[in-house]
Amino acid sequence: MFGFIPKDEKFFQLFKEMTKNIIEGAKLLKDMLDNFENPFESQRKIKDVEHKGDSITHEIIQKLNKTFITPLDREDIYSLASKLDDIIDLIDASAQRVIMYNVDSITPEAKSLGFIILQSCLAVDKAVSMLGKRSNEQIFELCVEINALENEADRVSREAISRLFDEEKDPIQLIKWKEIYETLETTTDKCEDAANILESVVVKNA
Amino acid sequence: MFGFIPKDEKFFQLFKEMTKNIIEGAKLLKDMLDNFENPFESQRKIKDVEHKGDSITHEIIQKLNKTFITPLDREDIYSLASKLDDIIDLIDASAQRVIMYNVDSITPEAKSLGFIILQSCLAVDKAVSMLGKRSNEQIFELCVEINALENEADRVSREAISRLFDEEKDPIQLIKWKEIYETLETTTDKCEDAANILESVVVKNA
Amino acid sequence: MFGFIPKDEKFFQLFKEMTKNIIEGAKLLKDMLDNFENPFESQRKIKDVEHKGDSITHEIIQKLNKTFITPLDREDIYSLASKLDDIIDLIDASAQRVIMYNVDSITPEAKSLGFIILQSCLAVDKAVSMLGKRSNEQIFELCVEINALENEADRVSREAISRLFDEEKDPIQLIKWKEIYETLETTTDKCEDAANILESVVVKNA
Repeated sequence: MFGFIPKDEKFFQLFKEMTKNIIEGAKLLKDMLDNFENPFESQRKIKDVEHKGDSITHEIIQKLNKTFITPLDREDIYSLASKLDDIIDLIDASAQRVIMYNVDSITPEAKSLGFIILQSCLAVDKAVSMLGKRSNEQIFELCVEINALENEADRVSREAISRLFDEEKDPIQLIKWKEIYETLETTTDKCEDAANILESVVVKNA
Repeated sequence: MFGFIPKDEKFFQLFKEMTKNIIEGAKLLKDMLDNFENPFESQRKIKDVEHKGDSITHEIIQKLNKTFITPLDREDIYSLASKLDDIIDLIDASAQRVIMYNVDSITPEAKSLGFIILQSCLAVDKAVSMLGKRSNEQIFELCVEINALENEADRVSREAISRLFDEEKDPIQLIKWKEIYETLETTTDKCEDAANILESVVVKNA
Repeated sequence: MFGFIPKDEKFFQLFKEMTKNIIEGAKLLKDMLDNFENPFESQRKIKDVEHKGDSITHEIIQKLNKTFITPLDREDIYSLASKLDDIIDLIDASAQRVIMYNVDSITPEAKSLGFIILQSCLAVDKAVSMLGKRSNEQIFELCVEINALENEADRVSREAISRLFDEEKDPIQLIKWKEIYETLETTTDKCEDAANILESVVVKNA
């Protein structure tokens, strides 16, 4: 698809840097939820990763502003960068909620969501790596996978919230956990948004 | 407007299938809220309709990937399909909230919202039918109508939530109903998002 | 950048009208939060400003529909108009929440958010004024500023919500204030969305 524009691989490299950074954030979040030993430190590291994400996004936009011929439509490069940035923002927001709401321990459902988020980020990274490589079918398959992961996160979060309403009698605890589940679930929505951009880029250039 | 591209009516047919499916979902939701006799069965049927929506969306994207000349810009076909899919997702999410929160009966405001959602979906269906038919003015009018319905849903949901805060002393019940109203109201937001895409498509091709 | 298309300044004028109107709304909101003397009247005035915003948006879309050559891509004019409209909608939604939840007094954090919202709207207005004027660098700088203001609003709102969970024992009060903070914070998100469109327009036309 983009085979006839060999140069300016730099954008693809920057996108790869971005998704590698996202994976790092997702691993830190999963570890924070699984072990919950030093949540403050985990959150601080995730915040650093989020700042790094901001710099890469900024670099992409600066580069876009200086590049005459781009390997994808300018607006698609822009949209993809924004959507990838949203993923790391939500990973950070999830970690923040856990700290801010001062929870004692992590529920099994929150751990499951941490796992699904990492799977989803790994799939986003794979799909991004295939941009510019005539691998439309694989990108589509990865988008289907990201969609399925989002559905699964939705199901887990819905069941967790359902259980919360059955079991939690303290409304303030209920509010806290409901929002933690929703923020974690929204992270997979953001992966799906990125997948949608990837899908539309592939469709447009098919 | 698109009169000079007579073939590939298939996309318009698929969009029509999509909006017919949305109408079916909206009717099931309205009926569920109005009668509330067998909410579990209603919710199951809505879930089936939502799955059918996913298949049609998938078919549109597959077709997009295989079609060289499209009757609208590729990215607009893609966006419209996504936004229509969001409508049926929110109809499903609304039904799910009602089941998940295990409510005893349906408030008048929720019934009103069910009615407005159906009206809005009917208008989306009409506007979609007019795509490719040189009927820009009618599409604009329908978009204005969809906007007005969204404003009305917003007003009803705001008043319902206001009443909730005045009357409901149990915070957990309050949280449940607040979210049911908000999810119903968001369904009309999604109709408005679809109308915005329709409007921008018409503007772009004017 | 757009220097070679001198006519049809009318769109830029309409965008200016739009941002002037947004500033008026933001000033009314800030004043409402700072003084809280006649909140009902403030809210009524903000609602009028919001209606005026709707008319300007409508005028832009009508004009778009009748104009053959536009100074920016049709879809960008459309998106920018929509995003600017979202800002005033959220200013209105914030004022509505304050009235609807019948609060007694305004917290310092809500006042800070009112201040940040006004700053952010002023920056959006400046950036919009520079469209079509070969001032890409300044537009980028203003977008960075709008981003920084959104981060600051996010921090203030997060700390306010954190304090709420520490101090507020009445869950219903907590729900009210949490939503007021979130709605105020979302207003700055909408400014950032508008900045993102501006940035992508500049990038696309660079």
